Amino acid sequence: MTDSDIQSAILDMGRRARAAAHALVKLTSDQKNTILRAMADELLARESEILAANALDLERAEKNGLSNAMIDRLRLDSKRLAAIAQAVSDVAALPDPVGEKLTDWTRPNGLHIRKVRVPIGVIGIIFESRPNVTTDAASLCFKTGNATILRGGSEAIDSNRALAAALQAGGERAGLPADSVQLIPFTDRSSVEHMAQMDQFIDLIIPRGGRGLIEKVVSTARMPVIKHYDGVCHIYVHPDADLEMAANIIANSKCQKPGVCNALETLLIHQDIASTFAPIIGQRLADAGVQMRADPRLLPLLGDAALPATEEDWTTEYLELILSIKTVASVEEAIAHINRYGSHHTDSIITRDETVAAQFQHEVDSAVVMHNASTRFNDGGEFGFGAEIGISTDKLHARGPMGLAELTSYKYLVDGNGQVR
Amino acid sequence: MTDSDIQSAILDMGRRARAAAHALVKLTSDQKNTILRAMADELLARESEILAANALDLERAEKNGLSNAMIDRLRLDSKRLAAIAQAVSDVAALPDPVGEKLTDWTRPNGLHIRKVRVPIGVIGIIFESRPNVTTDAASLCFKTGNATILRGGSEAIDSNRALAAALQAGGERAGLPADSVQLIPFTDRSSVEHMAQMDQFIDLIIPRGGRGLIEKVVSTARMPVIKHYDGVCHIYVHPDADLEMAANIIANSKCQKPGVCNALETLLIHQDIASTFAPIIGQRLADAGVQMRADPRLLPLLGDAALPATEEDWTTEYLELILSIKTVASVEEAIAHINRYGSHHTDSIITRDETVAAQFQHEVDSAVVMHNASTRFNDGGEFGFGAEIGISTDKLHARGPMGLAELTSYKYLVDGNGQVR
Repeated sequence: MTDSDIQSAILDMGRRARAAAHALVKLTSDQKNTILRAMADELLARESEILAANALDLERAEKNGLSNAMIDRLRLDSKRLAAIAQAVSDVAALPDPVGEKLTDWTRPNGLHIRKVRVPIGVIGIIFESRPNVTTDAASLCFKTGNATILRGGSEAIDSNRALAAALQAGGERAGLPADSVQLIPFTDRSSVEHMAQMDQFIDLIIPRGGRGLIEKVVSTARMPVIKHYDGVCHIYVHPDADLEMAANIIANSKCQKPGVCNALETLLIHQDIASTFAPIIGQRLADAGVQMRADPRLLPLLGDAALPATEEDWTTEYLELILSIKTVASVEEAIAHINRYGSHHTDSIITRDETVAAQFQHEVDSAVVMHNASTRFNDGGEFGFGAEIGISTDKLHARGPMGLAELTSYKYLVDGNGQVR
Repeated sequence: MTDSDIQSAILDMGRRARAAAHALVKLTSDQKNTILRAMADELLARESEILAANALDLERAEKNGLSNAMIDRLRLDSKRLAAIAQAVSDVAALPDPVGEKLTDWTRPNGLHIRKVRVPIGVIGIIFESRPNVTTDAASLCFKTGNATILRGGSEAIDSNRALAAALQAGGERAGLPADSVQLIPFTDRSSVEHMAQMDQFIDLIIPRGGRGLIEKVVSTARMPVIKHYDGVCHIYVHPDADLEMAANIIANSKCQKPGVCNALETLLIHQDIASTFAPIIGQRLADAGVQMRADPRLLPLLGDAALPATEEDWTTEYLELILSIKTVASVEEAIAHINRYGSHHTDSIITRDETVAAQFQHEVDSAVVMHNASTRFNDGGEFGFGAEIGISTDKLHARGPMGLAELTSYKYLVDGNGQVR
């Protein structure tokens, strides 16, 4: 395809998505839930087609020498497909935020103003190789009345095509408007740029993937982009902390699932308890196989597993069993370190002092600031949102876990009886 | 200045604004209000300096042959400066949204989650020639705990420098952190691009000005941009409407202040009342000096002042006493016309039928959808927000009138007693 063919194909999808968005506004919650269950049924009904498509992706992946980890992320089987379909059904069971009255008031001139939740419109999802993003993103966006344009990675293109076709076909049988869920059917790289330029038809882009992908979208997009950047998450241990609680929370935050954005990456210890707490936590982390990188003062206290930290360690999201550790002289120094080196994602203080905890929570500029809890709780599921499309590191529109409510906008409905200015 | 000098000067301002933002978080509402009143006092105390600076701008404007309208927008005098200072004092009197608890809940594991309003951080304001934007934007952003970097047009540079210096000096005497209000002191065009690229230090850019300025920022910005685009606003008159009310609302929406974004630009009349209502409204608008551009069916009914409309008229924001008028066969056709040709700003239906009004309000995809009221009520002051920084045509973060609350973000504070996953 020439670049101009790609551009006109993308523009045409955009135009059709906008029409779908206007049609989606008219669906009731019950109609949407029926459609979601029909989508889930169709995913199961098309198991053999979907797994056959997936086999093509896997074959290509092996031929292209993709890593085992990549191939595993790509792989679908009966069990994984059943989980994917179940996740779509689960979205049907969640409460619908659309139509919710956020607030209302009456003006002295008698005008009654209501602020109500509405769909955003058309959402572009640009993602890498996990095929389940196709169904997760499409079902969450659909539940909130949005049309989606999906652009998946080339590695999963056959799986994605089969999954998107099942969603649209199953949905349409139950009343889904045409073009509500569109997958870009080709994998030319320039399709990302054409999507990112098309702000007349796409209201929001959510890139799901690594820093390179997000960076590419941010640098070209004309519409808002909600970013899910790194989590360089901290725990600060104040001198009055319950040290056993501190050790448990640190071990959990670092080790329970080290490869995710809400895992702990840097531990800050108040200097007054360094000599008592460092040996305890050093032993605990060494036993769990964690490599420590610490400032010179802590090194002799942490045991043999610890190495000296460099400046780069304070900004590094390891995503593995490595932890940087530093002493600080005060809660103020801890806050300053976190605001300077952190990624404004998730940070936690361990202390018995409510005043110090309040200061830390107030002054640390992060999406989620914990007190006496694991950083791993910054998660849509753990917050009770039922589902999440990601954890935003942005400050505009959505910050922290993004559930269904964060996939909506609002509008004002104003009722009068002839008011003029 | 070389481009690299400009870039490093802007980066340095960004770094200092970020430090100021961290300091601003620590101010109480009372401290902020005291600072705002000190800023207002200093504006009055520096009247002779500010008017002398303004005289330089006016002199340059005349030499450069700016239009009288432009020169009038630029001009300050004692009375206008007093109004500017009063507006800053008025912001002190508004309630502070920062710290407000938006919601809170407790999870089954005992974690208590609070969602609270916080400042956004650093806001960039890029504006054209009105010097009062300097003080309006800076005071609203400061009230909400944000640091600002202001970039005004070259026409008003001397006035802007004097106003920004008064804000910072007056504020600092009352405890304003250094660098909270920074004006870019030079007018090289590339400063806009350097600001727009600096997403590590600027969290949000709000361009205040014409389409060209907004377009330039949108096409280069890496951070979110809140746009205040055109208002192609509609009124639809349903057959059961109170026709006298309809005529009053139409005349008010079109004529009361035609040069603003919430003024009426297109009137849609149901075909069943065209022959009765068109002569009434045609006479009323002709008396008010409004030029009408209408579809062929309406032309003979509207009187001599009416001209044939072209396709272009349906998307035009006239901002003067011109109105496009069209018949439609149904409320559905009115909704489809508005969603296709409008700018999603403000639209109003005139009807006695609550069901039809609800359908119109539900399906028209605009920031504010009125029923039996003038489009001119889409305004922060008329909504009771006390002040507004503009009327957003975006759907993310802020839609419609933007008051103080829309200049805030939020974060989650999570309190536990040792919870781990």
